[in-house]
Amino acid sequence: MDSPFFSPKGIAVIGASQDTHKLGYGVIRNLIKYRYKGGIYPVNRKAYEILEQPCFKSVAEVPDPVDLAVIIVPAKAVAGVLAECGERGIQHVIIMTGGFSETGEEGREMEKKLMEVAEEYGIRMIGPNCIGTIDTHTPVNTTFVVGMPEPGDIGFISHSGAMVAAIIDWASGSGIGFSRIVSLGNQIDVNEIEMIEGIAGDPQTKVITAYIEGVSDGQAFLETSRKMALKKPFLMLKGGQGESGARAVASHTGALAGSSEAYGAAFRYCGIQEADTIEEMFEWARAMAWQPLPRGKRVAVLTNAGGPAILAVDALEREGLEIASLSDETKKYLTSRLPKAASVNNPVDVLAGSGPGTYTLALEALLTDENVDAVLVIQAPQDWFLPVSLAEVVGEVAAAHDKTVVTSIMGKASVGDALKILQKRRIPNVAFPERAASLLSAMKNRREWLRKQEDAEIPDFEVDQKEAQEAVKNNDWESLLESYGIRFPEQKTAASEDEAVKMASEIKGKGVMKLVSEEFSHKSDIGGVKLGLKSEADVREAWSEIRKSVEKAGGNMQGVLIQQMVESAQEVIVGLVRDQQFGPMVLFGSGGTDVELYKDVQTAIAPLNRMRAKDLINATKAGEKMKGWRNMSARDEEAVVEALLRLSRIAVDYPEIEELEINPLCVLENGQGAIAVDIRGEKITPKN
Amino acid sequence: MDSPFFSPKGIAVIGASQDTHKLGYGVIRNLIKYRYKGGIYPVNRKAYEILEQPCFKSVAEVPDPVDLAVIIVPAKAVAGVLAECGERGIQHVIIMTGGFSETGEEGREMEKKLMEVAEEYGIRMIGPNCIGTIDTHTPVNTTFVVGMPEPGDIGFISHSGAMVAAIIDWASGSGIGFSRIVSLGNQIDVNEIEMIEGIAGDPQTKVITAYIEGVSDGQAFLETSRKMALKKPFLMLKGGQGESGARAVASHTGALAGSSEAYGAAFRYCGIQEADTIEEMFEWARAMAWQPLPRGKRVAVLTNAGGPAILAVDALEREGLEIASLSDETKKYLTSRLPKAASVNNPVDVLAGSGPGTYTLALEALLTDENVDAVLVIQAPQDWFLPVSLAEVVGEVAAAHDKTVVTSIMGKASVGDALKILQKRRIPNVAFPERAASLLSAMKNRREWLRKQEDAEIPDFEVDQKEAQEAVKNNDWESLLESYGIRFPEQKTAASEDEAVKMASEIKGKGVMKLVSEEFSHKSDIGGVKLGLKSEADVREAWSEIRKSVEKAGGNMQGVLIQQMVESAQEVIVGLVRDQQFGPMVLFGSGGTDVELYKDVQTAIAPLNRMRAKDLINATKAGEKMKGWRNMSARDEEAVVEALLRLSRIAVDYPEIEELEINPLCVLENGQGAIAVDIRGEKITPKN
Repeated sequence: MDSPFFSPKGIAVIGASQDTHKLGYGVIRNLIKYRYKGGIYPVNRKAYEILEQPCFKSVAEVPDPVDLAVIIVPAKAVAGVLAECGERGIQHVIIMTGGFSETGEEGREMEKKLMEVAEEYGIRMIGPNCIGTIDTHTPVNTTFVVGMPEPGDIGFISHSGAMVAAIIDWASGSGIGFSRIVSLGNQIDVNEIEMIEGIAGDPQTKVITAYIEGVSDGQAFLETSRKMALKKPFLMLKGGQGESGARAVASHTGALAGSSEAYGAAFRYCGIQEADTIEEMFEWARAMAWQPLPRGKRVAVLTNAGGPAILAVDALEREGLEIASLSDETKKYLTSRLPKAASVNNPVDVLAGSGPGTYTLALEALLTDENVDAVLVIQAPQDWFLPVSLAEVVGEVAAAHDKTVVTSIMGKASVGDALKILQKRRIPNVAFPERAASLLSAMKNRREWLRKQEDAEIPDFEVDQKEAQEAVKNNDWESLLESYGIRFPEQKTAASEDEAVKMASEIKGKGVMKLVSEEFSHKSDIGGVKLGLKSEADVREAWSEIRKSVEKAGGNMQGVLIQQMVESAQEVIVGLVRDQQFGPMVLFGSGGTDVELYKDVQTAIAPLNRMRAKDLINATKAGEKMKGWRNMSARDEEAVVEALLRLSRIAVDYPEIEELEINPLCVLENGQGAIAVDIRGEKITPKN
Repeated sequence: MDSPFFSPKGIAVIGASQDTHKLGYGVIRNLIKYRYKGGIYPVNRKAYEILEQPCFKSVAEVPDPVDLAVIIVPAKAVAGVLAECGERGIQHVIIMTGGFSETGEEGREMEKKLMEVAEEYGIRMIGPNCIGTIDTHTPVNTTFVVGMPEPGDIGFISHSGAMVAAIIDWASGSGIGFSRIVSLGNQIDVNEIEMIEGIAGDPQTKVITAYIEGVSDGQAFLETSRKMALKKPFLMLKGGQGESGARAVASHTGALAGSSEAYGAAFRYCGIQEADTIEEMFEWARAMAWQPLPRGKRVAVLTNAGGPAILAVDALEREGLEIASLSDETKKYLTSRLPKAASVNNPVDVLAGSGPGTYTLALEALLTDENVDAVLVIQAPQDWFLPVSLAEVVGEVAAAHDKTVVTSIMGKASVGDALKILQKRRIPNVAFPERAASLLSAMKNRREWLRKQEDAEIPDFEVDQKEAQEAVKNNDWESLLESYGIRFPEQKTAASEDEAVKMASEIKGKGVMKLVSEEFSHKSDIGGVKLGLKSEADVREAWSEIRKSVEKAGGNMQGVLIQQMVESAQEVIVGLVRDQQFGPMVLFGSGGTDVELYKDVQTAIAPLNRMRAKDLINATKAGEKMKGWRNMSARDEEAVVEALLRLSRIAVDYPEIEELEINPLCVLENGQGAIAVDIRGEKITPKN
């Protein structure tokens, strides 16, 4: 997006001020100080010049070229000024003024007025209540924040202006450089989705980062984000996940925060990688901007001291990376070149007395080894040689290979010069080696995600849609699922005790009796399910016990279902739920009555493809168990994949279904399929 | 420990050198540069002076007073020099020389020789293969590492010399000050346990920190550490937790790393708080040294911007802290003093335009509110006032209260001066607010741990020890557990099918049949357990099925156990295991066959007291379920506490038992007790 927001030809600053304590002064100061090369036109009725820039009485007087206006006048005056911009032919406006919807009803009304004006003149707006935009390559800095980030590869989109200010201040001198930054404020027009596209489309941007507190449109967010994440790494910090956090968001931007589960599923679907802290997000971003993604997860550690290497190995393993097994050739070579007491197994310890030359030979050997995907180079402080020389050789050797190299030249006081060289040579450094694990893991995860997108086909199924539509209409979830090829146990209904005895005698194997009642959704909770019925006596006893339970619960017994009992199966839950923001999601996990206790359940955005269905299964303990567990042989995972794909299809085909759950789905031995034993569904309640 | 290692009267440096590239030069340089006030005596046969300190040909010539020697001669010469020190009457020695046990058998032999010499002369040694000691208050710095930490309250013990060097370099200028630092190297004499005591006993040390790769003696470690942690916060970074990590430790120091589970239990028992990263450990340490522990977990957030507060709230809740509900009085006061649009609910947002005065009033109000235990003060960068003035007022107001105050004056470039003021005023600051959560949580956890130590009594039980001894002798675990008051279901054994039918008819309610066989420890895995037997036919069928299963598994059917079936109970596992290092541990968790799948199991060092038994239960999902879950009423937690206390007692009374496990222990309704349904035990196999 080569728009006037990031590369304007000329900028009118309406509300520019001579008072150094006002925002309207800061904007002019930044435009000049950070070397914006186009025209800078302060609009101020009373002043003649601000910082030697001549002032204009109104935007109408501003000369050409001008295609961007920054507005910092009081809230009530903004609509009028906006119209003046329109008259002047300025169609891109950043409204910094606060006091709109974030303060209440009156502000919301004013925002509506702004939207009307903007529509009339075809104006695009960022804000209100924002701090503007930065493009370090143009360069242009429309904010009033002191400081300009170093030019670089990272684009940053923020729902919080304060976060932008803090990050500019913090990143200064850290080697973390930015391409574009935008603060979106109340985003009554340009929103985070448009900006994701805008930042991702910028050729200077190699990595997209964002701090968001909510999304404007779930479906559009999913679609755009996924498309952008396929092109460039997309890292995210999401604010407002906890309960009180959600409250804070509400009072802050008026955005409705979805549940953190749904956000997790949405981010996984899009290939967005979520960081826990601001520092983590930018450490990942820098590494991805500077280094190639590792081809696999095998990491070699090259060190001059044992302790730091141990911490690194612990952290790497915690983060799902592997300690590479070096080839015999590498070990032989290292043995011939390193000091006698050195360790030539990974971690490779060159010992405290070794200098940059030894590091060079060892690093070259490790990067040449086919068993190594990435190398972490550690240098504990020593007094033999300057850290700068290590930085130089690591940078040089790493550049000759296309594998990931990360350093931990440890310390702070003595390593400043070395860090500058590493920045120049685009080698990410961490002050302590255990921090390298998080960024290597993020890089590996991105690589894995990209690889999986190759299998993106969503399977289709032959379904009698007439039958299915009828079933949905009647809330007949069993028929619906049957239309989509889900299997159920053999079963019959009985309205009386005698009928139940008769039905049970016709069922193969043992029987299960289940209360038929629309009043209770968790039937086992009120004693409405009896298992293992083998004789007439069993059936009669079960009938009488269920009747008593129903009466005790104040309910009404309409009859029972007699089902074939499915034995020695693994019980899982599969289901679909519709998220308010992100639409249909599919879930999978350990089933039965303890499903909410262990919370061994994962969710994914629908529609699923085969690979993502498998990922969903593998992300749970239930999936682990399915591969064979203790005395249970492997279960029919393929049948579960099929069930998930079909539920996913139902979710897409029938948007009126809010929830549909099979619990338990009884998964039989490999090749034997899976049987839905209990189901529960709900349609969306129409809102008035 | 006011020992010559930290406050020597005079120091002989044997192997001192004029060559600036040698360690023996660095030690002399550091002693002088970092203002050691006692005598500095370089011992060097060839030199006349080093850095203007006259040299001595041998340690015998060194004048009084001298009570510490630093040895940096080649490995083979160390034993001779050590003897010379003994002859000269020097009884404290730091051996920096490497090339001992860390390099192999020859080195181990040389270490033995050192121990012999040391014993002969009554010498205490630190090292070999270490980098020495620092006391910033004496001051003395016996290391060769460039840099001297700022004087402060934190003591640091390290199994890695490189880590010491890195931390000195990193902490410089960070406001993290040290009291004592010691690098232990191969610790053939003075080990980490002695040093924990030595550092904890130092009046300048307020917080103990340690990087360890293993413990020298599990029992002594537990006892000493717990005693010290009762006096002072004790923070730990443990190296070598993963599998490859354990290998790296082995090659590094020869210490045997125990399993990470056992370390976790040991640290919890001692009140040692384990950090994930070096930075985290020292951020915790600084906060605990500077600020009072919070009385509870209710945190107020005071901010000038929404976004950072949202991230803080998310992180605080993730770490188990609560967002304080402010009193009406506080809210009323804040409403009267803050800008109209400000938020007076927690997080309290004074808005971007407020200065240090407004912060002062708000902070005073929050610290006065009885619903607040700690306050996090956030300042996003702004252009109105200098951050130093905020630092001053926060420091001043916080000092007038005894509640925990932490700041996040965000950024880096513009906040250096403010951070210096915060250091002076002992207010810990974090660059981003979400990092405050980890340290507030650590402080809260310490407070909770200290409070629980008040209930430290280990209960005793009346047990017929003669009976119990006999049972242990015969591996009769059931009788043993019965002696200790554990209940079992009504049960009888049967050697034939007909006998089984007879026995079953005599049992109350439904029956369970279990294979009797010494060949299979997990009987249900091979189909050796049948439940819900109600009729003669059921019993006969079960007998025949078990017989078939045993035959299929190639086993031998000695008979069966007919037990009363315990229904509608919660199945848990309780057990004891003996760790090689830390001795007896008790475990608790979700029982049944999925125990290893969900790994919902926690361990604790025995003996337990009542409070710790409850903590153990509460740390699991099983404990959560026990309080009542869906249709299951609350189970008899007290009975589980009793079972755990009794197992803990058995662990102490019978050290020959290696493992004893009840799975499932069936926990009945409140007041109904718990019944051990299946047990398994093992004695320690005597080693040859």
